[in-house]
Amino acid sequence: MTERAETTWAELPIRDDLRGGSPYGAPQLDVPVALNTNENPFPPSERLAAAIGAAVADTARGLNRYPDRDAVRLRDDLAAYLGHGLTGRQVWAANGSNEILQQLLQVFAGPGRAALGFEPSYSMHPLLTRVNSTEWIGVPRAADFTIDTGEALAAIERHRPAIVFVTSPNNPTGTAVPLDTIERIAKAAPGMVVVDEAYAEFARAGTPSALTLLPEHPRLVVTRTMSKAFAMAGARLGYLAASPAVVDALLLVRLPYHLSAVSQVVASTALSFAGELLGTVDALRAERDDLVAWLRSEGFTVADSDANFVLFGEFDDRGAVWRRLLDRGVLVREVGPPRWLRVTIGTPAENAAFRDALLAAVR
Amino acid sequence: MTERAETTWAELPIRDDLRGGSPYGAPQLDVPVALNTNENPFPPSERLAAAIGAAVADTARGLNRYPDRDAVRLRDDLAAYLGHGLTGRQVWAANGSNEILQQLLQVFAGPGRAALGFEPSYSMHPLLTRVNSTEWIGVPRAADFTIDTGEALAAIERHRPAIVFVTSPNNPTGTAVPLDTIERIAKAAPGMVVVDEAYAEFARAGTPSALTLLPEHPRLVVTRTMSKAFAMAGARLGYLAASPAVVDALLLVRLPYHLSAVSQVVASTALSFAGELLGTVDALRAERDDLVAWLRSEGFTVADSDANFVLFGEFDDRGAVWRRLLDRGVLVREVGPPRWLRVTIGTPAENAAFRDALLAAVR
Repeated sequence: MTERAETTWAELPIRDDLRGGSPYGAPQLDVPVALNTNENPFPPSERLAAAIGAAVADTARGLNRYPDRDAVRLRDDLAAYLGHGLTGRQVWAANGSNEILQQLLQVFAGPGRAALGFEPSYSMHPLLTRVNSTEWIGVPRAADFTIDTGEALAAIERHRPAIVFVTSPNNPTGTAVPLDTIERIAKAAPGMVVVDEAYAEFARAGTPSALTLLPEHPRLVVTRTMSKAFAMAGARLGYLAASPAVVDALLLVRLPYHLSAVSQVVASTALSFAGELLGTVDALRAERDDLVAWLRSEGFTVADSDANFVLFGEFDDRGAVWRRLLDRGVLVREVGPPRWLRVTIGTPAENAAFRDALLAAVR
Repeated sequence: MTERAETTWAELPIRDDLRGGSPYGAPQLDVPVALNTNENPFPPSERLAAAIGAAVADTARGLNRYPDRDAVRLRDDLAAYLGHGLTGRQVWAANGSNEILQQLLQVFAGPGRAALGFEPSYSMHPLLTRVNSTEWIGVPRAADFTIDTGEALAAIERHRPAIVFVTSPNNPTGTAVPLDTIERIAKAAPGMVVVDEAYAEFARAGTPSALTLLPEHPRLVVTRTMSKAFAMAGARLGYLAASPAVVDALLLVRLPYHLSAVSQVVASTALSFAGELLGTVDALRAERDDLVAWLRSEGFTVADSDANFVLFGEFDDRGAVWRRLLDRGVLVREVGPPRWLRVTIGTPAENAAFRDALLAAVR
């Protein structure tokens, strides 16, 4: 197609408020030690891979037909995993929790409405908010990355947001939000409260899930993902728990047949291996706690972490440290507050490589 | 969770313009002869099902990692299938063509902009348009379901839409749109022109694809799907061909990692079986032409069809005919203009069952 005139963005009628933006996403570099996207470093077992292959081969025999539009079996399986007396009627699933968040914004936010979050936090919250033509209100967290409940309630009263996002444990800081704070936000918020619990399974003992608040708060939504604890980032399966009315409302905006028959059966198969997959979580939590202690012993400042990553600093020039780590084959993430870096917990060998590279990088 | 207060929609802060809507979707009924959603009735072969299972088992070993965010291999495979000198840089893929259409609306439409289409047509175009806070302008087709080019150009001049949708072959009427009409629309339109070619492979001989117009029209987009000709409705794989700048613009709104590693490898595997899968297309086209001839011989009015379905009528009470067909185990679709019904082309046995049931239903 050599005759095609090369078109540039300037010639395309891109929405005015998106023009000049840049696509989200960490660099996908091929490095020996990738600790930048909070993936679980432990691959599925051969037994699970074979079970997934067999289940998909069976499903493939009927792929000429549309999938179950409502993913009933998968939602039942997810509810059973979550516990707390939940049923499939209170669960919804999509292609990653990003699609869940987008559906929530589409049905509960939009033009003339606002969404509010406590920053620094997951950068997809403001990005999705803006793509869905909704005003974003970022409320700063305290210096230790906690949410000041009084300031949170004041901001909610001032802005009356259609959606409040609470990320717990928070990304990129690792900070869990106390249930009392979430409950007070849920009582004060005029619209929906979305607690993004992507990293919930990695929380330290005694950190309860916002799932326990659902019965008393019909506008509360808890989102989860199989990407992290279940080591299924490549399968793209996010989900939420909420009142059945919230699930029904999402049907107004979900793309029909949004979740393939293959995605549904892969996720259900992985859930049937929950014991095996979640076995990696304890190992990663122990590695995380070791890494936090080591970083502190070496003089770094470290945010308390209830996730599978650690935010550490503080650096006058974090970009230079990031680059020197990469030169040694270790890719971390330059994200969050300007003097900090985020490292994902890897295998023991990867964490050791990170420690060696970091000491070399800062010397 | 018996203590949960039952919430109703009325208590939820659903967007005002969505309140009162109802979810899209044909009834999913369990019937002997389902001819209502334009599925391909021929399931994948055992050989293909096994190949998909093996490919997914292999991919499953790395599912702890995020997928290739840009689906490079799959886009190359899709470009090779499309031909016309296209490369992967000119192709984009998503979870069904609905997601492709939504991404196009997100980046090129939105509040203050309008999208225009020629009705009756695919009902997801106006639905997706409204969910994305964009004004919908429906321009009526002529009595024979063709697009009057003069009226189309006048409507485009009057409304200056950000996106013009042209469905060819059209759903639910089966009508292909002449290339000359599409080209004149592309020249006149101030924004993007999206030619939805979901059923392109079923067109009668001599019906060219709008892909041939891409080199000269940088704001033209052609969307396709693997749901129909490739018999992969359950795999949810839609795609588009356009200028590389259009593909780059979509990166501003696509959910990161929107397409799972499993979806990517399932689609690539199916593409490697293109010969086998597309072999069903010829059989379905012959069945369609036979059914059109038979319906006309029985005195029905039938719209010319270049798709894997046929719109037929006219009925004073199509709902009654739909119900009497269902009573006989045959599910068709009550869609499109009020005096017509749409039937998907099934297997020869299914089509025979439909003919018998229809004669019984109208006598």
